[in-house]
Amino acid sequence: MAYNPALREHAANEVDEQRIAKGLTWRALAEHIGRPPAWATAALLGSHPMSAEDAEKVGELLELSPETIRALQRQPYRTADAAMASDPTIYRFHELLAVYGPAFKALIHEQFGDGIMSAINCNVDVSRREHPDGARVVVSIDGKFLPYQWGA
Amino acid sequence: MAYNPALREHAANEVDEQRIAKGLTWRALAEHIGRPPAWATAALLGSHPMSAEDAEKVGELLELSPETIRALQRQPYRTADAAMASDPTIYRFHELLAVYGPAFKALIHEQFGDGIMSAINCNVDVSRREHPDGARVVVSIDGKFLPYQWGA
Amino acid sequence: MAYNPALREHAANEVDEQRIAKGLTWRALAEHIGRPPAWATAALLGSHPMSAEDAEKVGELLELSPETIRALQRQPYRTADAAMASDPTIYRFHELLAVYGPAFKALIHEQFGDGIMSAINCNVDVSRREHPDGARVVVSIDGKFLPYQWGA
Amino acid sequence: MAYNPALREHAANEVDEQRIAKGLTWRALAEHIGRPPAWATAALLGSHPMSAEDAEKVGELLELSPETIRALQRQPYRTADAAMASDPTIYRFHELLAVYGPAFKALIHEQFGDGIMSAINCNVDVSRREHPDGARVVVSIDGKFLPYQWGA
Amino acid sequence: MAYNPALREHAANEVDEQRIAKGLTWRALAEHIGRPPAWATAALLGSHPMSAEDAEKVGELLELSPETIRALQRQPYRTADAAMASDPTIYRFHELLAVYGPAFKALIHEQFGDGIMSAINCNVDVSRREHPDGARVVVSIDGKFLPYQWGA
Amino acid sequence: MAYNPALREHAANEVDEQRIAKGLTWRALAEHIGRPPAWATAALLGSHPMSAEDAEKVGELLELSPETIRALQRQPYRTADAAMASDPTIYRFHELLAVYGPAFKALIHEQFGDGIMSAINCNVDVSRREHPDGARVVVSIDGKFLPYQWGA
Amino acid sequence: MAYNPALREHAANEVDEQRIAKGLTWRALAEHIGRPPAWATAALLGSHPMSAEDAEKVGELLELSPETIRALQRQPYRTADAAMASDPTIYRFHELLAVYGPAFKALIHEQFGDGIMSAINCNVDVSRREHPDGARVVVSIDGKFLPYQWGA
Amino acid sequence: MAYNPALREHAANEVDEQRIAKGLTWRALAEHIGRPPAWATAALLGSHPMSAEDAEKVGELLELSPETIRALQRQPYRTADAAMASDPTIYRFHELLAVYGPAFKALIHEQFGDGIMSAINCNVDVSRREHPDGARVVVSIDGKFLPYQWGA
Amino acid sequence: MAYNPALREHAANEVDEQRIAKGLTWRALAEHIGRPPAWATAALLGSHPMSAEDAEKVGELLELSPETIRALQRQPYRTADAAMASDPTIYRFHELLAVYGPAFKALIHEQFGDGIMSAINCNVDVSRREHPDGARVVVSIDGKFLPYQWGA
Amino acid sequence: MAYNPALREHAANEVDEQRIAKGLTWRALAEHIGRPPAWATAALLGSHPMSAEDAEKVGELLELSPETIRALQRQPYRTADAAMASDPTIYRFHELLAVYGPAFKALIHEQFGDGIMSAINCNVDVSRREHPDGARVVVSIDGKFLPYQWGA
Repeated sequence: MAYNPALREHAANEVDEQRIAKGLTWRALAEHIGRPPAWATAALLGSHPMSAEDAEKVGELLELSPETIRALQRQPYRTADAAMASDPTIYRFHELLAVYGPAFKALIHEQFGDGIMSAINCNVDVSRREHPDGARVVVSIDGKFLPYQWGA
Repeated sequence: MAYNPALREHAANEVDEQRIAKGLTWRALAEHIGRPPAWATAALLGSHPMSAEDAEKVGELLELSPETIRALQRQPYRTADAAMASDPTIYRFHELLAVYGPAFKALIHEQFGDGIMSAINCNVDVSRREHPDGARVVVSIDGKFLPYQWGA
Repeated sequence: MAYNPALREHAANEVDEQRIAKGLTWRALAEHIGRPPAWATAALLGSHPMSAEDAEKVGELLELSPETIRALQRQPYRTADAAMASDPTIYRFHELLAVYGPAFKALIHEQFGDGIMSAINCNVDVSRREHPDGARVVVSIDGKFLPYQWGA
Repeated sequence: MAYNPALREHAANEVDEQRIAKGLTWRALAEHIGRPPAWATAALLGSHPMSAEDAEKVGELLELSPETIRALQRQPYRTADAAMASDPTIYRFHELLAVYGPAFKALIHEQFGDGIMSAINCNVDVSRREHPDGARVVVSIDGKFLPYQWGA
Repeated sequence: MAYNPALREHAANEVDEQRIAKGLTWRALAEHIGRPPAWATAALLGSHPMSAEDAEKVGELLELSPETIRALQRQPYRTADAAMASDPTIYRFHELLAVYGPAFKALIHEQFGDGIMSAINCNVDVSRREHPDGARVVVSIDGKFLPYQWGA
Repeated sequence: MAYNPALREHAANEVDEQRIAKGLTWRALAEHIGRPPAWATAALLGSHPMSAEDAEKVGELLELSPETIRALQRQPYRTADAAMASDPTIYRFHELLAVYGPAFKALIHEQFGDGIMSAINCNVDVSRREHPDGARVVVSIDGKFLPYQWGA
Repeated sequence: MAYNPALREHAANEVDEQRIAKGLTWRALAEHIGRPPAWATAALLGSHPMSAEDAEKVGELLELSPETIRALQRQPYRTADAAMASDPTIYRFHELLAVYGPAFKALIHEQFGDGIMSAINCNVDVSRREHPDGARVVVSIDGKFLPYQWGA
Repeated sequence: MAYNPALREHAANEVDEQRIAKGLTWRALAEHIGRPPAWATAALLGSHPMSAEDAEKVGELLELSPETIRALQRQPYRTADAAMASDPTIYRFHELLAVYGPAFKALIHEQFGDGIMSAINCNVDVSRREHPDGARVVVSIDGKFLPYQWGA
Repeated sequence: MAYNPALREHAANEVDEQRIAKGLTWRALAEHIGRPPAWATAALLGSHPMSAEDAEKVGELLELSPETIRALQRQPYRTADAAMASDPTIYRFHELLAVYGPAFKALIHEQFGDGIMSAINCNVDVSRREHPDGARVVVSIDGKFLPYQWGA
Repeated sequence: MAYNPALREHAANEVDEQRIAKGLTWRALAEHIGRPPAWATAALLGSHPMSAEDAEKVGELLELSPETIRALQRQPYRTADAAMASDPTIYRFHELLAVYGPAFKALIHEQFGDGIMSAINCNVDVSRREHPDGARVVVSIDGKFLPYQWGA
C-alpha cells in the first residue's frame, strides 16, 4: 500500500534537526506560517498534510530538502504508535484518561446527550501558566459535539 | 492482594442507578458535597477515595447501602481498562493523543524544559460552549510541571 | 465505574430468547417501534440507548422483565469485543477492511479531502438482493463527511 | 517464504508518487484500465494481482519502473496490518463493526439463514452524496451469501 | 449483545457427561441423527446450530434438559478461543499451518488461480488408518474453491 | 543466535522469481527433484532443509545464486508468522480449526485414546477435485498417532 | 464446547486441600497408585486423565467427592496459562529456554538430524541432589526423538 | 541504549557459517575451548559472554573476523524472542512446561520448601540415549535451590 | 491445577477490611508478628506463605475466619497481574525500570561481573524521609549477587 | 515524527565501544563529568539529555564522533522496550514489582496518604555491599512524594 511512515519520519527528523541548528522554536515556525502552534507542530511532525505554500515557506526558512518539502504535503496515515505512549511526558495524558475517562464520558452525556466530542473538528492548545508553587501546563481541547444521529 | 475491583464497580453501579432513580445529575452530586464536577464524578465512579463525610453525605442523598458508603472511602487501584478505551466517546481522546501526543511533548519541552505535566497535581474539567455550528465540548487539563530533577 | 456490561448482555439475551419464543423477527421488532432495522437490532443488542417509550413498547410485546426494560434505556459503553471479531459472519467484514481499507481511505481523501466518514452521524443497512447465481448480502453505510477543521 | 511485502509497498509508493506528479486521480487510473475504482485502487495499493495487460497500461501512463510493473502482477499476501487500523479514516469503519457487527450478524441470519456474506465474491464502492447538512460518504458492500453447507 | 457462550458451553458439557454416563461414542450420536461424525460432534460441542428434530432426537437419547435441547438450536457465535489452540492435540494442526500454510497458498493459487478454499461450503473428516509402524490419523478437508470475483 | 530468517526469505524470493521468469510450476519443481509437491514447495519456501543434491538440482534448473543454493540446505527455524495467518487464503484454515478443533480433538481421542497426531511424521497434500457446482480444494493430512506414553 | 477447566481446577483444589489436611506428600500419593511422582502430580493437578482404578484409589485415600473422582478421569484440555508462567518458581524454566533454547535446538539437530524431541512420548522427573554449597534441583527430561518424516 | 542484538546475531551467523564450511560440530568447538557443549553452543549463539582467550581460540579455528571475535566477548542482553518459541524443536519444551510446570512447582516446594531452582547457578546438558524403539533425547537441568530468604 | 488465586484474594480482602475496622496499620501488624513491614504486608496480601504461628497470631488480632487463616499459610502462585502495573502508584516503579533498567544492568555488571541480583534472597523496604521541599519515599532493595556459574 | 530511536541507540553503542576500548568504567565517566553514576550511565545510554558541556567533555575523553556528541544532547523519547524486560538481570526487578508492588502501594498510602512517589523528581543508585555469604547489590530509590491534589 502507499503507506510509507519512514518518509514522514525522515521529514520530521530533518525539520527537527534544522530547527535546532537554526535555533528556532516550534512556536516560531508556527508563526512563520500563521498557524496555531499545536497544529503546526503536529503537521511538521507528520500528523497533518500541509498546503504547498506552507510547506515551501517552512522549507525555505529551514533549508529543507525537496523530498522533505514534498513529504510534508503528503496525506499521512495517522497511526497510533504504542511505544510512544510509554514516554513519560506523553504517558501522563494516557494515565489521565484511565483515571478520568469514565467521568469525561458521564459528563459529556449529561451535558450533551448520547454522542462524542469530535477529534476531527477539534482544536488543542498547550500553554504555560505561572503559579507560586511552580509553573503549570495547561492543555485545552475544544471539539464539536456530535450526537448519535440516524438518517442524514 | 487487597484488590477487589468488583467492590468499587458494584458501588459505582449503585450510585449510578440511585442517581437515575432520583433524577439527579452528576453535577448536582458534586455540588451537594462542594467538589468540582470532574473530581466528584471520578470519585463516585471509583477513581478517588472519598472522605467519610463526603461519602456519607452522598450516601444519605442517594440512599446508598452501608457497603457502598464504605467502598467509596477505600483507597482504589486506578488500573487502566483496555476495553473501556474502545468506547467511542472515550476513544476520541485516545485518538487525539495519537495525533497530537508528539506535539504536546515538543511544546512542553519547548516551554518548560525536560520534564512532564503531573497527572497527580492536576485538575480537569469538562464544559459546554455554545457555537452557531453546534455546541462544543471543552476539556481543560491543568497540571503542575515537574522537571526531571536529581537530588532532592 | 458505572460500567456493567453484564446487565446489557443479560437484557440482550432476554430479548433474543423472548423474540424466538414468540416467533418474531428483528425486523418485526423494528417495525413495532417504527425504527430502521439495523438501528433497532443494534439497540436491542446493547449498542444504543432506547427511549423509555420504545423500551416499554418492546417490553410489552416481548413480555420483558422490568430490569431488562430499564437496562435498554441505560447509556451503554460501546466497547469492542475482540473475540466477537473472530465469528466467521462478522470476520468477513474485518477482512474486507484489511483488503480495502487503504483504498477506502484513498478514495475518501480524493473525493472529499482530508477527513473521515463519521461513525456517529451514520446510517447502516443490511438487505437481500436476489441474483441468478445466489442471493447477495448488500450492506450500505452512509455517514457524514467530517473535514479536519481547526478553529470552530 | 516467498513473502516480501516490501516489494509491493515499494510498488504502491511509486504508483502513488507518479500519480501525484502527473496530477491523476485514482478514479482516472481505474478508468484508464476499465476497472471499478475501488478494485483498481486496491490493486494498485497491493491488494489484488493485476493482469499483465492492466499493469503495463498503468505502467505506461505513470512511467513506472519495470520492477513495479512486475510487482503489480505478483500474487499478493493480503495480510492485515494492525497499525493501519488506527488511522482515523480507517478506524471509523472498525468502530462501526464494533457497534453494528452483532446486528449485521443477526440480520444476515434472519434474512439468509446460517452462513456468511462472502468477502471474495464481493464488490465494494465508495461514493459521494451531496446533502444540505454536508456531503456524505456512501460505502456499499455487495457480497454473495454462502450458506454453511456440508457435502459438496 | 445476544452472545452468551456460557449457555452453549453448559450445553456441550451436559452432552459430554451424559454421553460418557451412557457409554456412547460421538460417532454413535452422529449415526443416531444421520449426520457425518465431524459435523455432528462440532454441532454438539457448539459450532453449528442443530435442527429442532436433531436436537430433540439427541436429547431423548441422552436425556438432556430442555435448556440444553433449546441451546443446541441457537445460532452460535463461532468465536476463536486462543487458549484452546495451546492444547497439544489441537496445537499440532496450528503448527502444520505455520509450516505448510505458505505452501498451501502457493499450490491453491497454482491449481485454481487467485482465491480461497471456502471454510463454509466445506466438509471435514477424521479417520484412522492402520499402519505397521503405528496407526495414523487421516484428516481430510474438502472445500469449494472461490475465485476473487468482482461484479455479481 | 544463528537465526537469520532474512536469508531464507531472500532465497525463497529468488526461487519464486526465477520460477515465474522460467514459467515453471511448483509441481514441476517438485517432480524435477522427485519429491511430493507440498513437501517440495514448503522446502523451497523455507520450511524444510533440502539435501545438497536436491538444492543443486533446483539451483541449476532455476539458475539460482550460490548463496540461495546454500541457504536452501540450512536447518531452518520454522517459526510462526502471525501476520501470515491473516492472508485470506491461509486464514480459512485457521477458521476451520476454530470451528472444528474441538471436534478433531474429541474424535482423535475417541478413535485412538489420549495423544496427538504427529505434525513431524506427517504428510500433507493439496489437490483439485472437479465438481458440477465448482472445483473443490481437497487437503489431506496424514500423521502418525502418538499416544501419551511414560517410560520409554 | 465440552471444555470446562473450572471442573478440573476444582478437582485439583480438593485434592490439594485433602492432601494437606491428611499430611500426605505428592510422592506418597504417587506411590499409593504406583506411578512416577511427576506423572502422578501432573495428573492430580489436571494434566493427564487417570484410569478409573487410580482415581478411585486416590479418592478413597483422600476422601474425595464423587465429582472430583469423575473429573480426574476426564480427558483434559492441556491449555497453556500465560499467568502461571510468571510464577517465579516456574518462570526460571522459561528463562532457561530463552537462554538455552537455540543451543538445545542446535545440539538436537547435530546429534539426531532434523526433527524434535517428543513431548508426548516423554518422561520428566524432579529430584534433589545434596551439595556442599547447597542442595540442587535436578530436572531430567527424556523424550523420543522424532525425525521429520514424509510418507508413513 | 548499548543494546545492539544485531551485532551478536551477525556474530552467531558468522560462527555458524564458518563452522559448516569447515565441517565442525558444536561439540568439537566446545572441546576446542574445553567447555561443556551446551554452555559453549549457547555462548557462540550469543547467550553468554566469552573470555578473550576462548573467543580468540574459536576465532582462529573458524577464521572469524575481528568484529565477531570482539562481539563474542560483549556482555549480552539475554532477551526472550517470542518468535523463536514457535519453532517446533523448541516449542516442545514450552509445551512440557505448560503440562508439567505446576507439577515441577509442587515437587520443588515439597522437596525443598518455598523457593526456586536457580537459572543462573545452573548447568544444562543435551545427550543421546539409544533405545530399541528409537533414540531418545535426554535433557538434564541441574540448578541450585534458592530459598526465599529475608535478611542477608 | 491447584491454583486458586481467588482464595488468596479473598483472604487479603478480609485482612484489609478487618485491619481498617480495627484501625490498625500494616506496620502494626508486622510488629505484632515480629516481621519486617514490607515482608509482612506482602505476605498478608498473598505473596508469601506464613507460618502457622504467624497466621494464627494475626488471625486472633484481626478476628479472621478459619478459611483465611488457612489460606495465609498456603504456598502461593506469585503470578504477575498486568492490570495492577497500570495503577499510578505502582506504575512509577515500572517507569523507573524503563528509564534506568539498562543503567542498573550496566552498573551491576561493572561492579559484580556477569550475573544478577537475586529477587529471592532479597529484602525490600519502604520508608519516609522528611525534606524541606516535601517528604520523600525511600525504597531500598538489597539482594544477593548471583554470578552466572556452570558446574555446581 | 521527530522520533528516531536508532540515532540514540547508535550513540549509546559508540559510547560503549569506545569506553571498552579505552578501558574506562561507567563510574569513571560519571566522575569525569561530576554526575552521579546512575544518572550518567542512564544519560549515556540514552535516557536523559546531556548538557552541551557534559556531552563534549565525554566526547573528548572517548573520542566520539560529532554526530554522537550531538545525539547525546537531543531530548529523548524514554519509551519502554518490552524485550529488554526479559533480560535476566533486568527481569529480577520486574519480578520484585510483581511480588512487592501491592505492598509498596499499601505502605506508601499508609505513610503518606493517597498519591505516588515521583519518578521524575527521583534519584536512584546501585552499590555493592560485602557480606560473608556473598556480595549484595543494593539499589536505592529516593523520590518525592506527590499527593493527589486538585486545584493548584
